[in-house]
Amino acid sequence: MIFGEDDWQRLVAIAEIVTCDDGPVADGVVDECLPRVSAIIGQTPMPDERLRRAPGLRAIFNVEGNFFPNVDYGYCFRHGIRVAVAAPAFAAPVAEYALALTLDLLRGVTRADRAFREGTEAYGWRGNRDATTLFGRDVGIVGFGNIGRALVQLLAPFRCRLRIHDPWLPDAVVREAGATPTTLDGVFAGSDVVIVASAATRDNRAAIGAAQFARMRRGAKLVLVSRADVVDFAALLDAVRDGRVEAAVDVFPEEPAAADDPIRKMPGLLLSSHRAGGLDSALKTIGAMVVDDLDLVLRGLPPVRLQAARPETIGLQRSRPGVAASAQRQPG
Amino acid sequence: MIFGEDDWQRLVAIAEIVTCDDGPVADGVVDECLPRVSAIIGQTPMPDERLRRAPGLRAIFNVEGNFFPNVDYGYCFRHGIRVAVAAPAFAAPVAEYALALTLDLLRGVTRADRAFREGTEAYGWRGNRDATTLFGRDVGIVGFGNIGRALVQLLAPFRCRLRIHDPWLPDAVVREAGATPTTLDGVFAGSDVVIVASAATRDNRAAIGAAQFARMRRGAKLVLVSRADVVDFAALLDAVRDGRVEAAVDVFPEEPAAADDPIRKMPGLLLSSHRAGGLDSALKTIGAMVVDDLDLVLRGLPPVRLQAARPETIGLQRSRPGVAASAQRQPG
Amino acid sequence: MIFGEDDWQRLVAIAEIVTCDDGPVADGVVDECLPRVSAIIGQTPMPDERLRRAPGLRAIFNVEGNFFPNVDYGYCFRHGIRVAVAAPAFAAPVAEYALALTLDLLRGVTRADRAFREGTEAYGWRGNRDATTLFGRDVGIVGFGNIGRALVQLLAPFRCRLRIHDPWLPDAVVREAGATPTTLDGVFAGSDVVIVASAATRDNRAAIGAAQFARMRRGAKLVLVSRADVVDFAALLDAVRDGRVEAAVDVFPEEPAAADDPIRKMPGLLLSSHRAGGLDSALKTIGAMVVDDLDLVLRGLPPVRLQAARPETIGLQRSRPGVAASAQRQPG
Amino acid sequence: MIFGEDDWQRLVAIAEIVTCDDGPVADGVVDECLPRVSAIIGQTPMPDERLRRAPGLRAIFNVEGNFFPNVDYGYCFRHGIRVAVAAPAFAAPVAEYALALTLDLLRGVTRADRAFREGTEAYGWRGNRDATTLFGRDVGIVGFGNIGRALVQLLAPFRCRLRIHDPWLPDAVVREAGATPTTLDGVFAGSDVVIVASAATRDNRAAIGAAQFARMRRGAKLVLVSRADVVDFAALLDAVRDGRVEAAVDVFPEEPAAADDPIRKMPGLLLSSHRAGGLDSALKTIGAMVVDDLDLVLRGLPPVRLQAARPETIGLQRSRPGVAASAQRQPG
Repeated sequence: MIFGEDDWQRLVAIAEIVTCDDGPVADGVVDECLPRVSAIIGQTPMPDERLRRAPGLRAIFNVEGNFFPNVDYGYCFRHGIRVAVAAPAFAAPVAEYALALTLDLLRGVTRADRAFREGTEAYGWRGNRDATTLFGRDVGIVGFGNIGRALVQLLAPFRCRLRIHDPWLPDAVVREAGATPTTLDGVFAGSDVVIVASAATRDNRAAIGAAQFARMRRGAKLVLVSRADVVDFAALLDAVRDGRVEAAVDVFPEEPAAADDPIRKMPGLLLSSHRAGGLDSALKTIGAMVVDDLDLVLRGLPPVRLQAARPETIGLQRSRPGVAASAQRQPG
Repeated sequence: MIFGEDDWQRLVAIAEIVTCDDGPVADGVVDECLPRVSAIIGQTPMPDERLRRAPGLRAIFNVEGNFFPNVDYGYCFRHGIRVAVAAPAFAAPVAEYALALTLDLLRGVTRADRAFREGTEAYGWRGNRDATTLFGRDVGIVGFGNIGRALVQLLAPFRCRLRIHDPWLPDAVVREAGATPTTLDGVFAGSDVVIVASAATRDNRAAIGAAQFARMRRGAKLVLVSRADVVDFAALLDAVRDGRVEAAVDVFPEEPAAADDPIRKMPGLLLSSHRAGGLDSALKTIGAMVVDDLDLVLRGLPPVRLQAARPETIGLQRSRPGVAASAQRQPG
Repeated sequence: MIFGEDDWQRLVAIAEIVTCDDGPVADGVVDECLPRVSAIIGQTPMPDERLRRAPGLRAIFNVEGNFFPNVDYGYCFRHGIRVAVAAPAFAAPVAEYALALTLDLLRGVTRADRAFREGTEAYGWRGNRDATTLFGRDVGIVGFGNIGRALVQLLAPFRCRLRIHDPWLPDAVVREAGATPTTLDGVFAGSDVVIVASAATRDNRAAIGAAQFARMRRGAKLVLVSRADVVDFAALLDAVRDGRVEAAVDVFPEEPAAADDPIRKMPGLLLSSHRAGGLDSALKTIGAMVVDDLDLVLRGLPPVRLQAARPETIGLQRSRPGVAASAQRQPG
Repeated sequence: MIFGEDDWQRLVAIAEIVTCDDGPVADGVVDECLPRVSAIIGQTPMPDERLRRAPGLRAIFNVEGNFFPNVDYGYCFRHGIRVAVAAPAFAAPVAEYALALTLDLLRGVTRADRAFREGTEAYGWRGNRDATTLFGRDVGIVGFGNIGRALVQLLAPFRCRLRIHDPWLPDAVVREAGATPTTLDGVFAGSDVVIVASAATRDNRAAIGAAQFARMRRGAKLVLVSRADVVDFAALLDAVRDGRVEAAVDVFPEEPAAADDPIRKMPGLLLSSHRAGGLDSALKTIGAMVVDDLDLVLRGLPPVRLQAARPETIGLQRSRPGVAASAQRQPG
């Protein structure tokens, strides 16, 4: 499903494929292949005992966005086996969606359509009482990974003043992107819009909470597109309810949200059901990335398109095998 | 209202101001000032008989977006009096809004919020069945004036293939912008999204109609942000109704739309009540432009920020003193 | 000579051409054509008495970079006849050359080649004692016309801090280009490199002199690519001689320079013989611009590629019918 | 020498420094420190026996541009010790220099200065007989590493058609940079300028030779800024001598070149003594990169500014401990 016709032809040209059409590859099939396998594509569990039986293994390409705990990463690092995920394929669509949500909050697109359908629309200047532009505004970004970098590209023509917080990066990297490195609190205090694009790590569960929302400018916007649990969700809803913050939310603590969840009626919220990354075009990009990197690995070169695990950070990231991930696993 | 505090201070420093707080300046006041007036800011009618009595007049700055027929343009051209409008101030907000509408149509933001509020949202890939990305798509733009140029800047990071139609420009101008000059029909046939940003001219009333919509790719998007009457509106609604086209519409043949207008219930339409340009920040930009250009004109230099009337085109443009314009005239 | 084959075919398709292969068109031929001429391409003198006999004339396209005093501009403005010059065609090559000269001064390219040929070259860090980078430097630009704007584009990837001086433009225009509007003295005091790209006007003869050079940082660079007489040349040579300034000079008070001119031996000078704009590709661009704008004018539309004369500034500009211009007139 | 005052203060704040002012650190000092060392900055040899005695070692930061064979890389990969070099610090200055050389060859800057000094200069169009512009030209780049990427940024405003050859990268990476992936021969056949920016690998010694030069367009330009031995130098000189190619050369098989080397008199060559990267500003960048990455490593995070060795390619690269490198080692 992830391979376009061209990429599939390239794939079968460079490799013998063992696969299974419906559902995960059976354990027996895996075990049988181990002695001669060069690369694994997918979420096949690879604990130590399997890795030992795969002396020719050079790469494990997980076609999702997160590193799962089903691989013995230490073994792979010691033996030069590359483990990589498809996170870069999601950067462009997620950044695009974050921009769409940002523009919607600022310009009031969804709200105006709703008013028009209810017959309460106002025209011209009067319909724009709460609307503002993105041009020249103070924009904060939390997390400067694949998504954050793609966002900076999309925001460039708007000439915003960018504040970026990322505890894993030196200031110079943020400055080279034309932004100001800023503390987490500083991002919230100094921005008209804050876009949360940080991965889930050991250290940032609910790191964005009441203290941060209290610092936000009145009427500031929050856009949440990466992971729900980096935000204290109850505190976010409080900030929206009391009118301090308007928010666009694509990820939720529980998905699907309960049928009677009060967020479904809340004003000040733009609601989106985990739709930021999961586009068909992203799937096809993953397929192309996998074939490109497999070709490199089989030629003895390092992968360059997927995101390879690094020994320092693999233990710091939290994976999320929840509802959305399972939705992602079922694109058909 | 259009002047920020700084710009007002600059204005009174370079000129003696004759003004009137509520409503248009009275005829008597105008007539009294004519012998010594250097510049007129606003929509004061200036027929031949008034212009003759204003020997020192150098500029008429209309603070709206269109040239109105209340000035004797021929007299002004012959006597070196600059007549200029504030259209450039609207380019950035309208282009931003066009991008917001485009992303909304492609990614389904408003639709997804509505579904979430109705409890029918789908998560992840399943919620994106009809969603596509703007990256790398075929985008057509009709009209390459201030708005079209601002749009090209905003679209640049998405690396779209751009087709542009503008009958007043040589191909080279379009090519220098990185786009392909294209016929009107070619724009509709070759685009995933068509953005209509053309001014109303003598020649383009209802120029976009059934013939163009029939050429569009199935599921293509139309974004209309400039003037309603360049489109055959009935034909547009037909194309939306039969599912060939999805459209975002900011301008309508009648504004406000009738309470029982069926468009209020139509799926496939994103509805917006003439909100593209009329932001408070655009007003402030107009004020700054007026002061900047007044300063130049009083120093004997040509205006550079407002858009000056040109003898060739002044007779080709149609002004629109309708609902939206009156809405624009009442920002307070 | 200025028309490529394609452009010539377009030209003869839209117009009947009266021309003369060698030298200027004879007076008799001109006079005979006046009653039916729509446009004039070239430097044919057009005083009042000729213009009166050309009732259908709509445009005079001078294919050089400057407005010459051989046209009755007032008559043209009053009668809606466009007079335009080819200055925009030179913007890109001149800006490119200014960048080439700037990089040469900073990185020492010509100096290093000379040392290598003399056998005195030093390698690596030792060869770079006086070399610096353009990245992130303070760059000043005097004159923000066609050349200045093209320069800003070329400098963009170097992320310089730009200071721009242009007395004909409001600050906002400079700021929109990402630069800081600055006084003439401020440009010289605050820059590592100053690029002089200003046209010659009534007010700026020798406007850059000892006072400005005295303000320059020690070791700062000056690049002169537009007009020699906006600089006090003797003062410039003094500043170079005493080591305060290094300069690249493309235009000279007298061209050709005298055989025994001491500049030919001066260190600290990069010498160039009026080569910034006169490329064959610029000629071909002019031809394309002329055909494009002629097509517009014959269709009743304003020209958009050439630079049209404006009533306010036509009297402020100084033309230069000297050596370089005559060189420009003889491209064959 | 590589640390600015600020960076030095940051360094001593995060680490205890063991250093030696003149020349390499003595072996005894090194051996004594091994049990407690966390990071090594510099070219200290680190064979297996030393690495075993450094149980806390996390990083070796070599402050030159190449990986030297004085470290047991296998041991480091197995034990999660990062080995990194400062190559990224040279990317911007080398790319800038490559652009300067390219513009010099195309526009004839050095040649024109020489003619002026010899009294043989020609003015205007006549002085530009052999000059061409970079705008819109076909440019080929061999090697798409740090330098190549920086070059693409600098070339962007010139809107060249870029062909890039890099055997270690999939086509998609080149396409995302807006260029066309091309074979080595295709780059030479299809370009007006070829810039060689490839690292020295096991496979590319003298890979660019007579066959490639024979494919070049007559009058095409070659710019060599990375490593001399990727080019068959004798073949290059032949191509220059017979007029097919003009070349700018910054690196030579032997440095310094012999006093009587005929290249010193050759027309068609722009000569530069290994000056592309060794700027003082590059040294300071290295210092900042080292402190930034040391801070990350000591916090348990991966380095992001220096270039970390990769197991697949470490054996494929050739280091070069020759003249230029030693020049680089002596910046004072």
